[in-house]
Amino acid sequence: MNGEDQEFWGEVCQDLIEESQRAISPLIGSPKGGEIVKMGADGTPTTLIDQVAENKVMEILKGVERPLTLISEEIGEVRIGNGPSEAIMVVDPLDGTSNAVKNIPAYGISVAVAPIPPDKEGPLTIQDIQMGVVKNYATDDIYSAVKGKGAFLNGNDLIPSIKEDLSQISLGAYVYRMDMGKIEILCKSVRRMRILGAVAIELAYVADGTYDAFVDVRNNLRMVDIAAAKLILEESGGKVTDSNGGLLNGRLNVLEKTSIIATCNAVIHGKIREILEGI
Amino acid sequence: MNGEDQEFWGEVCQDLIEESQRAISPLIGSPKGGEIVKMGADGTPTTLIDQVAENKVMEILKGVERPLTLISEEIGEVRIGNGPSEAIMVVDPLDGTSNAVKNIPAYGISVAVAPIPPDKEGPLTIQDIQMGVVKNYATDDIYSAVKGKGAFLNGNDLIPSIKEDLSQISLGAYVYRMDMGKIEILCKSVRRMRILGAVAIELAYVADGTYDAFVDVRNNLRMVDIAAAKLILEESGGKVTDSNGGLLNGRLNVLEKTSIIATCNAVIHGKIREILEGI
Repeated sequence: MNGEDQEFWGEVCQDLIEESQRAISPLIGSPKGGEIVKMGADGTPTTLIDQVAENKVMEILKGVERPLTLISEEIGEVRIGNGPSEAIMVVDPLDGTSNAVKNIPAYGISVAVAPIPPDKEGPLTIQDIQMGVVKNYATDDIYSAVKGKGAFLNGNDLIPSIKEDLSQISLGAYVYRMDMGKIEILCKSVRRMRILGAVAIELAYVADGTYDAFVDVRNNLRMVDIAAAKLILEESGGKVTDSNGGLLNGRLNVLEKTSIIATCNAVIHGKIREILEGI
Repeated sequence: MNGEDQEFWGEVCQDLIEESQRAISPLIGSPKGGEIVKMGADGTPTTLIDQVAENKVMEILKGVERPLTLISEEIGEVRIGNGPSEAIMVVDPLDGTSNAVKNIPAYGISVAVAPIPPDKEGPLTIQDIQMGVVKNYATDDIYSAVKGKGAFLNGNDLIPSIKEDLSQISLGAYVYRMDMGKIEILCKSVRRMRILGAVAIELAYVADGTYDAFVDVRNNLRMVDIAAAKLILEESGGKVTDSNGGLLNGRLNVLEKTSIIATCNAVIHGKIREILEGI
C-alpha cells in the first residue's frame, strides 16, 4: 500500500472507529441493546446494538470519496459509490456484542482494508488485507498495522511475548460447544487460560503480550472476525495459521469459516501444534 | 449485624477499597507490578502489586478503633489492635492480579466481615460472614451485601438472571490445569462461556445477571477468594454450594480450599448438578 493510499484508508478507518464508538455508547450495558432485531447475512441473529453499529459504518462509508465494497457480519457484501471498487473493507462493527450488552469490558471494532488491484482476477482472500485496525472500546486502546510496516498499540510498537515454555503461557481458547479432544491436553499444559469472548481483541492481546497464544479449533471463526487482527499479530512478529499449521487464506466473505492457532512466536506455535496434531 | 456495627464495618470496608485502589493504580498494566517479591502465606508467589495492595490494607486496618483479625492471602492471619478481636476481616487485596498487571479490565478487591460473638467457641467459617464488598477496580462497580438485608450494585438492588434453560446460559468456568471429566458435558451444553480470571468479580457477575452461573470444581478456591462474593450472590437470591451440592462451610483461613457451583437460581443449579453428579 503506497503512502497516499495508506493515508486515505487510514483516515477512513479512524472515522469508522470513532463514529461507531460514539453511536453505540448509549447502549453499553443496556438490555435493550441486546434485543434481536433481525437475522444477519451470516445466519446469526442481529441485535439492536449490532444494527446501530453497522448503520453507522454504512453511513460513514457512503461519504467516502472512493468506491469500495463493504463486507460485514450483518449486512453481507455491499458496493458503495460509483465505478469499480478500489478496496474491500472487512468490518466487524461490534466484536464482543454480548460483552457490550452486559458491560463486560471487552468489546470493540475490527476494520480491515484490502486494496483491489486494477488487474485483479478472482476473489480476494484474507492474505490480501493490507491494513488492519482494532479498537477495544472499553479501554480505548487502538491496535493497528499496515502490511510490511509493523504493528502498533496507540502509536507504540507492538511486541509479543518471548516466552517459549508452554507451562508458563496465558492462553485464550474457546472450548465450549465442542468436543475437547486434544484441546484438553493443551488446557492442562498452560499456566492460565482466559475466554473474553471478543476474538479480534483477544488476537490483539497476543500481539501486545497480554496473551501468549489464542486458539480456536471449532472451525467457526469468520474472516470478518479475524481479518484485521491477523495482520496486526503477524506484523508484530507473531505467528498465525489454521489448526493444521496451514496458511490462512479464506476468501473475504461472511460465510467462510476457519480455525486458528495464533501465537507470540514460532516456538510456542510449534509446541501447540505438536499437542493438537491431527485434530 | 446491628445497625451500629453495620455502619462501623461498612466504613472500614469503604476506606479499604478506596485507599487500596489508589495505592495500586500506578502499577496497573506495568510489568514491574508483576515481579515476584516473596512467597505468600498461602504458598503462592506474591507480586509487587499484591504486596502494595496488602500493605495498604494493613495500614488502614491498623487505624481502626476496634481490635480485629485480618485474614489475607499473602499475610495469613494477623491480629490488629488490643484485646479480643471483635471481627475477622477476610480480604483478598487484589482479585485478578495477573489481569491488573496486564491491564485486562477485570480485577479488584474482596472484603468480608465476620463479627466474633463474645461467647463464640471454635473457629469461624464462611457461614459466619455478615458483610461482603467486592469492587471491580477496572469499572469502579461496587457490589455489597449485609446478611439478611439484600445485595446491591452501586446502591441498586442486585437481581440475578431468571433463565432456566441451560442451553441459553453464560457460564464462567475454570477448566484449565484439570481433567475435564463431566465439565466437558457442561461446557458443551451452554450458550457461551467466559474465563476472566477474577473469581470474586465473576461470582458478583452471577449476582447481577452478567453471568448465569460460575463453576470451579478444581477444589482450588480459597475462602479469601469467595468469602464476600458468596454472601453477595446469596443475598441477591442466587444459589451457592460446593460441587456436591453441599453447604459451603470452610473455616476462615488461607489454606482451606473448596469447589463451587454458583448459580442465578435453583433451577439452573439443579441442572448443573445433574450433569456434574458424582464428580
